[in-house]
Amino acid sequence: MEYFPAPLEKLVEQFARLPGIGGKSAQRLAFHVLSLTEEEAREFADAILEAKRGVTTCPVCRNLTAGGLCPICASPRRDESTICVVADPRDVMAIERAREYNGRYHVLHGVISPMNHVGPDDLEIKSLVERVDQGNIKEVIMATNPDTEGEATAMYLARLLKPFDVRVTRLAYGIPVGGHLEFADDATLMRALEGRREL
Amino acid sequence: MEYFPAPLEKLVEQFARLPGIGGKSAQRLAFHVLSLTEEEAREFADAILEAKRGVTTCPVCRNLTAGGLCPICASPRRDESTICVVADPRDVMAIERAREYNGRYHVLHGVISPMNHVGPDDLEIKSLVERVDQGNIKEVIMATNPDTEGEATAMYLARLLKPFDVRVTRLAYGIPVGGHLEFADDATLMRALEGRREL
Repeated sequence: MEYFPAPLEKLVEQFARLPGIGGKSAQRLAFHVLSLTEEEAREFADAILEAKRGVTTCPVCRNLTAGGLCPICASPRRDESTICVVADPRDVMAIERAREYNGRYHVLHGVISPMNHVGPDDLEIKSLVERVDQGNIKEVIMATNPDTEGEATAMYLARLLKPFDVRVTRLAYGIPVGGHLEFADDATLMRALEGRREL
Repeated sequence: MEYFPAPLEKLVEQFARLPGIGGKSAQRLAFHVLSLTEEEAREFADAILEAKRGVTTCPVCRNLTAGGLCPICASPRRDESTICVVADPRDVMAIERAREYNGRYHVLHGVISPMNHVGPDDLEIKSLVERVDQGNIKEVIMATNPDTEGEATAMYLARLLKPFDVRVTRLAYGIPVGGHLEFADDATLMRALEGRREL
């Protein structure tokens, strides 16, 4: 890469550090930046700085927000007595898209993962327990991913919340809507049978 | 996407404008920026601005440079009498990697493409003719891509340079080293046979 001018080389390196961007893609992106107008390049650079500076976490649910309470915690129309616990802010968006849930959220910012040295203290678990402890919460829905770590985190939290007078639930397992039985794995099919309901 | 804070949303949009980056990737990249330290984010933003501001084209060969003559034009060890004509600065890098060529370059910044409204006047063709006209050039090697547009551009330039006392050559066609005959297309095989050489 020694035949690129230094500032271009530096930008290629920056892009190459992004997740899922290899050397060739980084080059392509850096060349694209050269083709932008001065103003467009400034907008891009500003967007990076402003996202980094302007985005904080909501003091109540720990979801991302542009400052102060997040729109969901600030909304009087959302049911305060239900908390849906998710691992990541993107999961909030996924559930909101379903337009089915009208309660509040709590974002853990990760899952318990001994392999990656992530313990309960590295997550927003204390703040969740405090919210439940302050009362008025009737139900906590565990909406972590249905994988080993998400499962373990949900189990851990369920045990932690047992002393409180609160219902702890888990998202239903089963075959995905529009899916094919043929392609469903054994564990999913087993759970789908276990969870079968009267028609 | 209405559940992301505005500055994050803006950054996702900026990433989504980059070539080959879809909505999901843009989200992933924007979240990655949030996970950077303030200093890392500033470095990334600065790299964008500095690449845009600091990279210009060499006044002789039109390759990218950090200002003034590019390192290749500035080097006294490169053969001044040979010019290799390429479409893109990345092609210079590809040829340099082969460590076979010791002449100078000329970067057209595109190829003639009537479909995309790119004519000879949109490319660095006048500057090439001027270089050849100033004398001392013995050979001009056409190293545009072996596709229709690269071919047409090479033919156009060859005709344009005919009045000058200069040898105009084209990169050899043939089967790629390490390739399989089985997978070579007809046109390549035909050219490989045409261009066969004594062993």
